[in-house]
Amino acid sequence: MKIKSFRPKVKLFEKPEKISQEKPLLPKFKTFTNERENISKVKEGGKFDDLKIIPLGGVGDVTKNMYVYEYKDDIVIIDCGIGFPDEAMLGIDLVIPDISYLRDKKDKIKGIVISHGHDDHIGGLPYIWPELEVPIYAQKLASGFIRAKFSEHNLPKDKIKTIGIDTVLDLGAFRISFYRVTHSVPDASGIVLETPSGRIIHQADFKIDWTPVDEQVTDVGKIAIEGDKGVTLLLIDSLRIEKQGYNLSERSIQPTFEKIERETSGKMLITTTSSNISRIQQAINVAAASGRKVALVGRSMDSNFQVARDLGFLQVPQGVVIAPDEIKRFADNKLMIIIAGSQGQPGSSLSRAANNAHKFVFLKPHDSVVFSADPIPSSESAQYALIDKLSKLGVEVYYTALTDSLHVSGHASAEEIKLMINLVKPKFILPIGATYRQMREFSRVNQEMGYSPERILLVEDGQVIKMRPNNVTIDGKVESKNIYVDGLGVGDVGNIVLRDRQVMAEEGIVVVIVPIDAHTSKIVDEPDIISRGFVFEKEAEKLLSEAKKVVESILSDIPEGVLDWRFTRQHIEENLEKFFYEETQRRPMILPVVVEV
Amino acid sequence: MKIKSFRPKVKLFEKPEKISQEKPLLPKFKTFTNERENISKVKEGGKFDDLKIIPLGGVGDVTKNMYVYEYKDDIVIIDCGIGFPDEAMLGIDLVIPDISYLRDKKDKIKGIVISHGHDDHIGGLPYIWPELEVPIYAQKLASGFIRAKFSEHNLPKDKIKTIGIDTVLDLGAFRISFYRVTHSVPDASGIVLETPSGRIIHQADFKIDWTPVDEQVTDVGKIAIEGDKGVTLLLIDSLRIEKQGYNLSERSIQPTFEKIERETSGKMLITTTSSNISRIQQAINVAAASGRKVALVGRSMDSNFQVARDLGFLQVPQGVVIAPDEIKRFADNKLMIIIAGSQGQPGSSLSRAANNAHKFVFLKPHDSVVFSADPIPSSESAQYALIDKLSKLGVEVYYTALTDSLHVSGHASAEEIKLMINLVKPKFILPIGATYRQMREFSRVNQEMGYSPERILLVEDGQVIKMRPNNVTIDGKVESKNIYVDGLGVGDVGNIVLRDRQVMAEEGIVVVIVPIDAHTSKIVDEPDIISRGFVFEKEAEKLLSEAKKVVESILSDIPEGVLDWRFTRQHIEENLEKFFYEETQRRPMILPVVVEV
Repeated sequence: MKIKSFRPKVKLFEKPEKISQEKPLLPKFKTFTNERENISKVKEGGKFDDLKIIPLGGVGDVTKNMYVYEYKDDIVIIDCGIGFPDEAMLGIDLVIPDISYLRDKKDKIKGIVISHGHDDHIGGLPYIWPELEVPIYAQKLASGFIRAKFSEHNLPKDKIKTIGIDTVLDLGAFRISFYRVTHSVPDASGIVLETPSGRIIHQADFKIDWTPVDEQVTDVGKIAIEGDKGVTLLLIDSLRIEKQGYNLSERSIQPTFEKIERETSGKMLITTTSSNISRIQQAINVAAASGRKVALVGRSMDSNFQVARDLGFLQVPQGVVIAPDEIKRFADNKLMIIIAGSQGQPGSSLSRAANNAHKFVFLKPHDSVVFSADPIPSSESAQYALIDKLSKLGVEVYYTALTDSLHVSGHASAEEIKLMINLVKPKFILPIGATYRQMREFSRVNQEMGYSPERILLVEDGQVIKMRPNNVTIDGKVESKNIYVDGLGVGDVGNIVLRDRQVMAEEGIVVVIVPIDAHTSKIVDEPDIISRGFVFEKEAEKLLSEAKKVVESILSDIPEGVLDWRFTRQHIEENLEKFFYEETQRRPMILPVVVEV
Repeated sequence: MKIKSFRPKVKLFEKPEKISQEKPLLPKFKTFTNERENISKVKEGGKFDDLKIIPLGGVGDVTKNMYVYEYKDDIVIIDCGIGFPDEAMLGIDLVIPDISYLRDKKDKIKGIVISHGHDDHIGGLPYIWPELEVPIYAQKLASGFIRAKFSEHNLPKDKIKTIGIDTVLDLGAFRISFYRVTHSVPDASGIVLETPSGRIIHQADFKIDWTPVDEQVTDVGKIAIEGDKGVTLLLIDSLRIEKQGYNLSERSIQPTFEKIERETSGKMLITTTSSNISRIQQAINVAAASGRKVALVGRSMDSNFQVARDLGFLQVPQGVVIAPDEIKRFADNKLMIIIAGSQGQPGSSLSRAANNAHKFVFLKPHDSVVFSADPIPSSESAQYALIDKLSKLGVEVYYTALTDSLHVSGHASAEEIKLMINLVKPKFILPIGATYRQMREFSRVNQEMGYSPERILLVEDGQVIKMRPNNVTIDGKVESKNIYVDGLGVGDVGNIVLRDRQVMAEEGIVVVIVPIDAHTSKIVDEPDIISRGFVFEKEAEKLLSEAKKVVESILSDIPEGVLDWRFTRQHIEENLEKFFYEETQRRPMILPVVVEV
């Protein structure tokens, strides 16, 4: 098999920048073709062990993808992503998978294989890889993104191995090969695992786009050939199973950008997910054709752009891209700004620009801002608040509720999923990358296609799937809680801390200070009460002084002094809670503190 | 003009319950017809004062509607609603309009006129009315809802006046009349204000539904007649301006309910907004026709049902409705449960049922749950989390992403808005009940219809609109901040309290206790450090003991004791903040407390 190097056809520009060749980047793995075909032809009842498949993240939620494949003494991991906190996880920056199960099995792990370069598939590596230190195998663009992350975290990059779409990896009992799929980031792949217990296809995020911007279509031929060989289990992206029909092609976006460009007499801003390289390519195409300069604004936007361009995934004519600090040198109608913050994240570049607090981007009427990304459920109100703020500045805002063809999803709709299943024809099927409601719908659609319910596995994170060539079952569960990343800390914010934050967020805190004599344990002075986030102290003097009386009466009941602080403390908590609830119908956190003096 | 009494045509049932007559409910207002037509025919330049219109809530946000109309010594208020807190308003239950502007003008207020019975138009009354104690004029159903609220809050109900759609009110300089519109609650109206400075139409929430379930269509004829008389200003619901075309009729829902009923072999649960009486009517129709008993579950659901039935807005055959505690007496396939919690609100009846924590509702596979309400932007993830939980129980969940015709909006789409504008033909127009982005879009659509930008007023809460027959301008602004309702307190949670809650929610709190001698001000013991919601204390002993050293070193710099606590406190805060940020990249709230002993 020949290794095809990625070389997009460039139409708009005469002089494409030099594309680095893929070949020298490839490590020297043995490439097999057919000689070990018998690997999955072990007879039923023959000598083989169960293969274990354990999702540590990625089923029952959309993000935080990490799958363990274990056969006797060999483990291969697919993906290592981050998740995003929900509203109840106050102050949490990220969630990563729980690798407790792997801690005593580090020696067995042959490598981490990456499906594509999205953060929910690679973002966990900087936090988890230092504990494992195993090789990471990733296609060129994902590899570039991982390298950038490792640089940022000061981690060594020698274990990051860049592979090609035709690479075949022998990792212990696993022979692993790849095929091309389209998605909302270029260079995405499906993964084939040949194991002694049968053949698996792990199809993470994909869509079927016949005219992708980078012209690398989903390789349905190769998938069909793998399907023909017999596939025991297909794991498949089922996020958009609820969406009927087929997706529109990514290529449908550019005409919309062109139309908006013609309508815009000031600066044209486009905001999208910073890893959506094809979207950025189309924006650059429009800018180049209309004589606008392009500035990439935002840390992630700039970093992903650099990586993608350096690796040949972006075609940028000379002189089109300028640095953000050069924006001021050009007339508004000669500028396109591709800017981070499409979900309305506070603190993002676009948010700061909307608040007139960006160093280089100043918005004026006649500018336009294009939201080329649909809101994800938890950030819909943040995105709308940002659109509102921009509208008040008088800029023209384009967003999906108003304008068609501003965004297409990177995930397969129902008919695309059905096509994939028909190509692979697996014996068993396991929907991934979705919430439970979507898995349920997936099961319904599958049954319509003739699959019996026993052949469709709906699992949760941590459940152990056991596979042999003609049978796949669910058997047991390993620990898999959320690990929270907050500031520099990984895993040091637990449920107690979160619950405390929740209470303080809803109702505030009341601190009660009881000074006692260190020797006699007697109360030496009246207690002090301080509150934050409860009621505005200056206006609630009366309430707090009555609360003080409640505490004093408890303390006066123990003339012998605070001998059992635990008991006294509980007593104060209960009585104050009751008092405050009756007076205000609020239940602040109550924190009694004894000070020995 | 004759007063038409509301009497829906009942088709499904033989014996409709007795409908109470409207006539006796009507207070005895003088009803004029044409004799004072000249009121709005004051010549331009003649003797009149400016009319002031001040939105205290309802422009720039969708809820919290309250509009002040002021002409010399007369004030009329339209609507008095609540708003819902956004994510940054931690722990806040409700938001109500700020009536600071009205505080010294109570004697001028002739009454509060209500457009329809939704909480964002009437929900503020129990908090605000006790300060004003003026008459409230509301159509029958809204009046019933207000009465129920006043009962709950132990408020007198004698100032609540029930009016009919043909009532004409003379309130000082204002002559006020009404016309019927359709919306997602029955008995909704548009309001006509005749004033010495010109005629105004105040069109709060509406849609144009030619086949509403209660058969009370929007009275386009009456609106056209008012339009013909000449309208200076139209205030109009513009929430759904982004939606092209026309809405489907509310009546399109019932066939979907019928289909799901046939598919459901267990209990059928339907969840919707509790004020959506027409939706409840359709559910009851389906239950009655298929021999299911109906239980209404949830406080608001039950209360609204009772009010609407007692006033004749619901047609319920005898013996169909059962109490929630009777559910256990019937077979699953003989039950329909209409249940509150369609937005996934934690603590709602449906949430509790999904968590197996409801007293009367136990869910099993073969039951179905129908979400007959689209998620509002800020609660999309809560609704989806609830759907997920229900899916895991094995019940069949029907929701908009999957099933068509489960919900129609109560707000006019673009073409319906255009129809209303063409009927009224106002000189000036003011979009209300929408966020700024929608107001912008409204302005664009209006300009397409031939309105010049000067005739379209985009205002914010608190801005003062001055009107005379041929001119409307924006002139000044009155105070209009959000008043937060939290527990029993109204307005006692201010921005400082909210900011504190935000900090504690994101990063937790660290309390530093410094014991000093009451006489000498010298430090008598080492400081104590306690944290909540920051790091889990038991695991962070080292961090906190180092923090203690930071405080000790500050205190040792002042051997003379804490003479200037303000300065010392600030010093401790700054140094600890720096220390914690370096160590953890978090910025907890730091609360230094000096204890004199």
